Amino acid sequence: MQDSLTLQLLGEFIGTLVLILLGDGVVAAVSLKKSKAEGAGWVAIALGWGLAVTLGVYCSGFLSPAHLNPAVTLGMAIAGLFPWSSVIPYIIAQTLGGIVGAVLVWVNYYPHWAETKDEDAIRGVFATGPAIRNYPMNFISEFIGTFVLVFALLAFTRGKFTDGLNPMVVGVLITSIGFSLGGTTGYAINPARDLGPRIAHQILPIANKGDSDWPYSWVPVLGPMAGGAVGALVYLLIP
Amino acid sequence: MQDSLTLQLLGEFIGTLVLILLGDGVVAAVSLKKSKAEGAGWVAIALGWGLAVTLGVYCSGFLSPAHLNPAVTLGMAIAGLFPWSSVIPYIIAQTLGGIVGAVLVWVNYYPHWAETKDEDAIRGVFATGPAIRNYPMNFISEFIGTFVLVFALLAFTRGKFTDGLNPMVVGVLITSIGFSLGGTTGYAINPARDLGPRIAHQILPIANKGDSDWPYSWVPVLGPMAGGAVGALVYLLIP
Amino acid sequence: MQDSLTLQLLGEFIGTLVLILLGDGVVAAVSLKKSKAEGAGWVAIALGWGLAVTLGVYCSGFLSPAHLNPAVTLGMAIAGLFPWSSVIPYIIAQTLGGIVGAVLVWVNYYPHWAETKDEDAIRGVFATGPAIRNYPMNFISEFIGTFVLVFALLAFTRGKFTDGLNPMVVGVLITSIGFSLGGTTGYAINPARDLGPRIAHQILPIANKGDSDWPYSWVPVLGPMAGGAVGALVYLLIP
Amino acid sequence: MQDSLTLQLLGEFIGTLVLILLGDGVVAAVSLKKSKAEGAGWVAIALGWGLAVTLGVYCSGFLSPAHLNPAVTLGMAIAGLFPWSSVIPYIIAQTLGGIVGAVLVWVNYYPHWAETKDEDAIRGVFATGPAIRNYPMNFISEFIGTFVLVFALLAFTRGKFTDGLNPMVVGVLITSIGFSLGGTTGYAINPARDLGPRIAHQILPIANKGDSDWPYSWVPVLGPMAGGAVGALVYLLIP
Repeated sequence: MQDSLTLQLLGEFIGTLVLILLGDGVVAAVSLKKSKAEGAGWVAIALGWGLAVTLGVYCSGFLSPAHLNPAVTLGMAIAGLFPWSSVIPYIIAQTLGGIVGAVLVWVNYYPHWAETKDEDAIRGVFATGPAIRNYPMNFISEFIGTFVLVFALLAFTRGKFTDGLNPMVVGVLITSIGFSLGGTTGYAINPARDLGPRIAHQILPIANKGDSDWPYSWVPVLGPMAGGAVGALVYLLIP
Repeated sequence: MQDSLTLQLLGEFIGTLVLILLGDGVVAAVSLKKSKAEGAGWVAIALGWGLAVTLGVYCSGFLSPAHLNPAVTLGMAIAGLFPWSSVIPYIIAQTLGGIVGAVLVWVNYYPHWAETKDEDAIRGVFATGPAIRNYPMNFISEFIGTFVLVFALLAFTRGKFTDGLNPMVVGVLITSIGFSLGGTTGYAINPARDLGPRIAHQILPIANKGDSDWPYSWVPVLGPMAGGAVGALVYLLIP
Repeated sequence: MQDSLTLQLLGEFIGTLVLILLGDGVVAAVSLKKSKAEGAGWVAIALGWGLAVTLGVYCSGFLSPAHLNPAVTLGMAIAGLFPWSSVIPYIIAQTLGGIVGAVLVWVNYYPHWAETKDEDAIRGVFATGPAIRNYPMNFISEFIGTFVLVFALLAFTRGKFTDGLNPMVVGVLITSIGFSLGGTTGYAINPARDLGPRIAHQILPIANKGDSDWPYSWVPVLGPMAGGAVGALVYLLIP
Repeated sequence: MQDSLTLQLLGEFIGTLVLILLGDGVVAAVSLKKSKAEGAGWVAIALGWGLAVTLGVYCSGFLSPAHLNPAVTLGMAIAGLFPWSSVIPYIIAQTLGGIVGAVLVWVNYYPHWAETKDEDAIRGVFATGPAIRNYPMNFISEFIGTFVLVFALLAFTRGKFTDGLNPMVVGVLITSIGFSLGGTTGYAINPARDLGPRIAHQILPIANKGDSDWPYSWVPVLGPMAGGAVGALVYLLIP
C-alpha cells in the first residue's frame, strides 16, 4: 500500500501544482502590467479559477482522488470516505504542489513583475487578502465558502471527483463560489492554495514585492479547515 | 411516507438556501462597495445565478426532486408529475430556505453593507425590482420568463431535474433567461427567490438599508405562479 | 404521416419561437435603454444567442428534429438526412415561429422602446445589419458562417441535434460562430432568424422605430441558404 | 493504409482550418475597427479560442484523431500513441490548414482591414507576439503552456480527443491555458496556429499590414514543440 500512497501523493502534488499554476496564473494575467489580459476583471478570475480546478482534477485523477485541498481531504476523512492515516501526507503533498505551482507562475510571468509597481497586486497573485480587513468576518466568509464546497462535493459526487464529467462539475462549483461568495476575501477555500503560494511569495526574489501579510495568513487556513469539517459533519447528520 | 416528505422538505429547504446564498451572493458581489467583484456586470450576474441554481439542484437532489421554486412545484403538479398534497409544504420549505439563504448573504458580506450607501443597491441584493416601474408589464415579463422556464423544464427533463447532467442544463436555462429576458425586472421567476429574501431584508438590521418595496412584492410572486401554471398547461395541450 | 408532420411543424414553430424570444431578447437586454443588462456587450450577445439555440432545441426536440433554421433544413435535405417534401413546410413553420418570438420580445421589453431613441438599436434587436455595408462581402460573411454551421452539425451530429447533450454542443457551435465570425454582419446564419423578426419589426407599432432596412434583407436570407447548401455538399464529397 | 492516411490528413487539414478560421476570427472580431465585437476583451478571446478548438476537433474527428497541432502530434508520438512515420505529413497538413484558415479570416473580415490603421493589431489577428519582448522568457512561457496542454491531454484522454464529450473538455483546457498563461505571449502553444497564419499574413495583400515579425517567429514554433515533447516525456515517467 505504500507504493499506492506514493502515487496518490504524486497525484495530489501534480494536481495542486496545476491548480495553482493556472489559478494564480489567471490572477497574474488580469493583475500584472502589460499582460494581454490586464483588466479582464472578475469574470475572467471566476471562470479561470474554476477551469484551473477542473484541469487540476483531470491532471491528477489517474493517480489520486484529486482532493487538491486540505479542507476537502479533512472533510472526506470526517465523512468516512478517506483514511485518517493519509490526511497529513496528503496535506503536505498539496502544500508542496501549491509552492511549486506558484514558482512556475513567477517564471511564466517573469518580465511582468518588474513592470508592476503595486505590492498589493503582486501579493494578490499568490495569496488571498481581505477586501475589508475584519478577521472574524473574513474567517466566517472563508468558513461559509468552504462549507458550501465540501457539502456540495459530498452531495453530488460522494467523494468521487474524477468520474466521468465530475471534474467539469467541480470546476463549475468553484466558479459559482467565486462569483457569489468570493467578493469578500478572494475565496481561498483551500489552505494549500493560500499557504503554498504565500510561502513562495516570501521566498522568491520577485521584483517589486512587499511583505507576505503573514498576520492574515491564518484566516485562509483555519477558515477553510473549519468550514470543510462542519460541512462534512452536517452532511453526515442528514439521514 | 411522512418521513419521506420530511426529507424532501429538508432537501427543498437546503437547495433553496444554497440557491439564494449563491444567487443573492453574486448580486452582492457585483453591487456592494469594496467587493472584489464590484462592477463585474450582467455577465457575472447571469452566469452566477445559473450556477447558483445548478448548485442548489446538486445540493438537494439526494433528498428531493429539487424544484426550489414554488412556480415549478405548481407547474409539476399541474403536469401530473407531482402530488397536489405536497405543494403547500414544498412552498413553505422553499420560502424558509430563501429567508435563511439571504441571512447568510448578509453575514458573508457583513463588512460591506456599511460601506454601501445606496439603498436601492442593498435592496437589490435581496429582492428584485423593475427597471421601469409598470406593474402590468412587469407582471407580463415575469410571466413570460417563468412560462419559458417551466415549459422548457418539462420539455427536456419531464420533471427529472436531478438525473445525470440535468442540473447543469437547468442552470444553463436560468442563465439564458437571465441574459435574454431579465433586463426588465431582474427575472425573479421564482416566488421563494423574491419573497424569502425580501422578508430577510425587512427583518435584518442591515446597515444603510431602506424600505423593502412591498408595493412591488406581489409582481414577482404572482407573475411567476401564473407563468409557471400556464407553461405547464400549454405543455399538457401538446399531444 | 400527416399527423406526424403536423407535430414536427409545431415543434419547429415552438423551437424557433423560443430561439428568437431568447436570441432577440439578449440583444434587447444589451441594447435598450434602462435595461438592467444595458452595455453588457458582445460576450453577453454571443453567450446569450448560443444558449437561445440550446433552449430552442430542448423545447422542440420532443416533437421535431429541431432544425429551427431554413439553411439547416436545406442542408439536411441535401445531405440525404431529411425528406425534400418537408422542406417548404418546415421553412414556413420556422419563419412563423420567428415572427411570433419577435412579437414576444416586443411585449417583454414593452416599456423600454419608448426610452430608446436610437432607430438602429431598435432595428438591431429584430434584424441583423452590416457593420460595414458591402453587400458582396456581407453575403460572403453570412455564407462562411453558415457553411461552418451546417458542416459542423453534419460532422458531429449526423443530423441528430436532440440526442443526449447535443443541444448543448449545438449552442456551443453558435456561440463560437458568434464570437469569431459575427463581428461583420451580426451572424444571422439563419433566414428565419432574420426575416421573421424583420417582418415583426415592420408590422408592430414599436415606439421610436425607423425603417426595416429591406434593401439589406436578402443578404441574411440568401447568404445562409447558399452557405448551408454548399456546406452540406462539401460534407457529402468526403468519402 | 495510404488511403487511410490521406483521409487522416484531410481531417487534420479541415480541423486546423476551422480552428484558425474561428480562432484568428475571434481576435479579428475583438481587434478590428467597426467590428461589432470590437473591444470585447480577453474573456471573449479566451472563450473564443477554446470554442474554436472544440469545433476544430468536432469537424475533423470523423476523419482523424484531431491533433490539429504539431506539438500534440509530436507528444502523442513520444507517448507511443501515434506512429512516427505520420508525424511529418500531419504537421504539413496542419500548417496548410492554418494558412487556408487565415485566408478565410481575411476574406470574412475583408472590409475591416482598411478601417484598421494599427499594424500590430492586424498582425496580431494572424500571429502571436510577446507582451514584453524577451525571447528566452517568451520561449519558456510557450514551453510551460504547451507542457500543460500535452500533459493534460494525455492524462484525461489518453490521446482520444474525439470520444464523447472530449472535444468540449479539450476546448475547456485551451480556454484555461488562455486565461491563465496566455497574458505573456498570446499562447500560440501550437506551431501550425502561429506559422500558418504568419505565412498568410506575409503573402496576402492585407490593407494596412506591416511586417510579419519573422524574428519572433521561431519562439511560437520551438517553444511549443519543446514543451509538448517534455510534457509527453514526463507523463511517460509516471508509473
